Amino acid sequence: MANAQLQSVLDHIDKDFDNSLERLFSLLRIKSISADPAFANDCKAAAEHLAKDIASLGVATEVRSTAGHPAIVGKTGAGGRPHVIFYGHYDVQPVDPLDLWHRPPFEPVVTDHADGRKIIVARGAEDDKGQVMTFVEACRAWKKVTGSLPIDVTFLIEGEEEVGSKNFVPFIEANKDEFKADYVLVCDTGMWDRNTPAITTSLRGLLYEELKITAANRDLHSGVFGGSAMNPIRVLTKILGGLFDDDNRITIPGFYDGVKDLPPDILEQWKKLNLTPEMFLKPIGLSIPAGEKGRLLIEQASSRPTCDVNGIWGGYIGEGSKTVIPSHASAKISFRLVEGQDPAKIRKAFRDYVTARLPGDCKVEFGDHSAAPAVALDWKMKPLAAASKALTEEWGKETVLMGSGASIPIVADFKRTLGLDSLLVGFGLDDDNIHSPNEKYDLRSFQKGIRSWARILAALAEVK
Amino acid sequence: MANAQLQSVLDHIDKDFDNSLERLFSLLRIKSISADPAFANDCKAAAEHLAKDIASLGVATEVRSTAGHPAIVGKTGAGGRPHVIFYGHYDVQPVDPLDLWHRPPFEPVVTDHADGRKIIVARGAEDDKGQVMTFVEACRAWKKVTGSLPIDVTFLIEGEEEVGSKNFVPFIEANKDEFKADYVLVCDTGMWDRNTPAITTSLRGLLYEELKITAANRDLHSGVFGGSAMNPIRVLTKILGGLFDDDNRITIPGFYDGVKDLPPDILEQWKKLNLTPEMFLKPIGLSIPAGEKGRLLIEQASSRPTCDVNGIWGGYIGEGSKTVIPSHASAKISFRLVEGQDPAKIRKAFRDYVTARLPGDCKVEFGDHSAAPAVALDWKMKPLAAASKALTEEWGKETVLMGSGASIPIVADFKRTLGLDSLLVGFGLDDDNIHSPNEKYDLRSFQKGIRSWARILAALAEVK
Repeated sequence: MANAQLQSVLDHIDKDFDNSLERLFSLLRIKSISADPAFANDCKAAAEHLAKDIASLGVATEVRSTAGHPAIVGKTGAGGRPHVIFYGHYDVQPVDPLDLWHRPPFEPVVTDHADGRKIIVARGAEDDKGQVMTFVEACRAWKKVTGSLPIDVTFLIEGEEEVGSKNFVPFIEANKDEFKADYVLVCDTGMWDRNTPAITTSLRGLLYEELKITAANRDLHSGVFGGSAMNPIRVLTKILGGLFDDDNRITIPGFYDGVKDLPPDILEQWKKLNLTPEMFLKPIGLSIPAGEKGRLLIEQASSRPTCDVNGIWGGYIGEGSKTVIPSHASAKISFRLVEGQDPAKIRKAFRDYVTARLPGDCKVEFGDHSAAPAVALDWKMKPLAAASKALTEEWGKETVLMGSGASIPIVADFKRTLGLDSLLVGFGLDDDNIHSPNEKYDLRSFQKGIRSWARILAALAEVK
Repeated sequence: MANAQLQSVLDHIDKDFDNSLERLFSLLRIKSISADPAFANDCKAAAEHLAKDIASLGVATEVRSTAGHPAIVGKTGAGGRPHVIFYGHYDVQPVDPLDLWHRPPFEPVVTDHADGRKIIVARGAEDDKGQVMTFVEACRAWKKVTGSLPIDVTFLIEGEEEVGSKNFVPFIEANKDEFKADYVLVCDTGMWDRNTPAITTSLRGLLYEELKITAANRDLHSGVFGGSAMNPIRVLTKILGGLFDDDNRITIPGFYDGVKDLPPDILEQWKKLNLTPEMFLKPIGLSIPAGEKGRLLIEQASSRPTCDVNGIWGGYIGEGSKTVIPSHASAKISFRLVEGQDPAKIRKAFRDYVTARLPGDCKVEFGDHSAAPAVALDWKMKPLAAASKALTEEWGKETVLMGSGASIPIVADFKRTLGLDSLLVGFGLDDDNIHSPNEKYDLRSFQKGIRSWARILAALAEVK
């Protein structure tokens, strides 16, 4: 009976898929770039649009104010059965450099990938609008076919994930009585590969710093002052250029303190997955792993801590030439952290590292954008086995339990504020260009993603 | 008789000074930024305006086309007496960062400096519109009072000095028969200090390079690729950060080849000038000389070769945070060269240095903006003694013969193409903020600059 119901739901998903796609497109057309204040109204519009969409499932849904972009809270179910929070985000990354997009980023289309796959192209197609809508559409199908959802669901969608959830975390803390549940479902991660589903069981943390180095009190002419006045770009490049040693290890004292090697059995599993530069780096035009020597490529990409300068600027960057020694130079730097690393300690170590290398007459100002520790999820949690089985049934391949190199800081916040574990299921692929021009989501990820959630909802109803 | 004439000219200069100032302001109001194609029409307007001004002296003046911004050529005199070319430029540097200007850069005013000096504030107030107008106004006074100039003058004013004179040099080469003269007067340099006039007898050369390092074929998400994919900002900062050793010497192999120490007598003179960090660096908010250890500050600033990163950019530089690994990162880098250094050799050494440090799967593209060797002028040329004496008479202090840290590449071009030496006299001060926000020219520099040229014109008439 339950199986027959599920089959009807899956059939309905396939039949209604064109409408699901149109509903996703409506959301993708809204320019909800959270990092840029110029798009604040678009963020609000996206929240209102998505709240209306969720409300149309018969869920009591509200757009809720925070100190930043609004959140969406929707509740359905009468209790007495498993109760999950579903988390996702409606905000997206900035779109620059715009000239590298093949089409306008907020005019979604279905098109053919170079290899013939059908893909949805738009900013947010995957991260995270496409992923969120796999769950929403799965719920819609259940509701349509059976009149209700198999479990109780609280929808909790935020608009500041791409800027560190600074106002969303205080919002859930302030309202935590509203968010009692058994665990959280998060749809913001990827598959192992195009055919193999995955559940993510560890996430790297993220420390994001900004620094500005000031030398002279004004811009100088290099003819007059070149050679005698310190150039802040020289200071900045010297400091940042020293962050890695010849083995590609990060040189900040204490950076690796507390970082553990993988358990031998996991290392063996990962060796067998045999991720090669040919598979992972060639599609992006590279061939040489840039991480620590002596580590597997999969370790470099997912279980080891990293450092990246995400932006750097100073002096004259227009056309032509200008012989200026600028007054200041800046950079944005982020660290992916792993279990055992304390973001606050790493921040202090980084700042000490910079300050120790600063000439006596220069100064540095620091700003921080986010600091979240790594998360290691409970591999033994009961819903994980149920979800894993449901995914395997949909995709016809064994579900991989994997570590992710990315950070979803909110997972640690859910544990800390609500005491809840998270189950991370998603349908992204490595070539989705998230945070880049020409972001895409495979049409198959979207359709089978909806079907996967329909199966998972059924499976979770059976978990006691 | 000659002295009485000169005195009348000087008196007229003082009497007419308000009008001189207004004529300078008219030129300063034109946004002749040569580096930015958006201001091409303004450059043309400045050429036409200044040509008209010179023509009003009774000089046959033309605006002449080049492959870039136009040049101005004006001729006066019937031969049989000393004949000089006067060189200057009407183009100016870009004005960014605009928010650091206290007033709009193209709305000149006379205002009070913090210490009570009267100053003219505008882009180009000194470099080089103010300086050019000291000569033009001196000629105007001679013409007005005596009906003619003491010597024959060819005015030769360009509009691309700030972008390397790329099209002006071919222009003088193509028309060199028009530019026969005894020597060149250049007004684009400074005084020793506020009260002490100077003639510049050596100039550093300039090599200006741009480079772009590309790693992946697109921007990447640091969660997915952080740790495994090379970040071009990491490559760029590592390379640029290694350009200086702990003694502040430039590490490019062969960079100092051919660079000579100062002659002992000049070194002694310079030691006596006793340029201190307190005098030279404190006004710009610094205290520690950034040049080679073991060298005098004045050597660092004027006779030693240098390297400065004038601009750097890559990745996300907007508000907030973005966890991107950019595809590429760029920098603009210039070298001030001294006698004995060949710009072409230094360019090759720099490019080899960069290429040798490039990871195997990254690539680099180079662009060059200019390459000019250093110039050492003939300290024994006869007009130099005459001009030096005239300057001493105007300022009441012995004229200093000094080396300049800046580059005026055209001086080497005049020697090469026309076979002419240059005499470099100017009235700029170290605190003029040239190439920076709030560029200024002391009102006294402008007035006594005009008077100085009036005296020099008289003195040069006597040089046989």
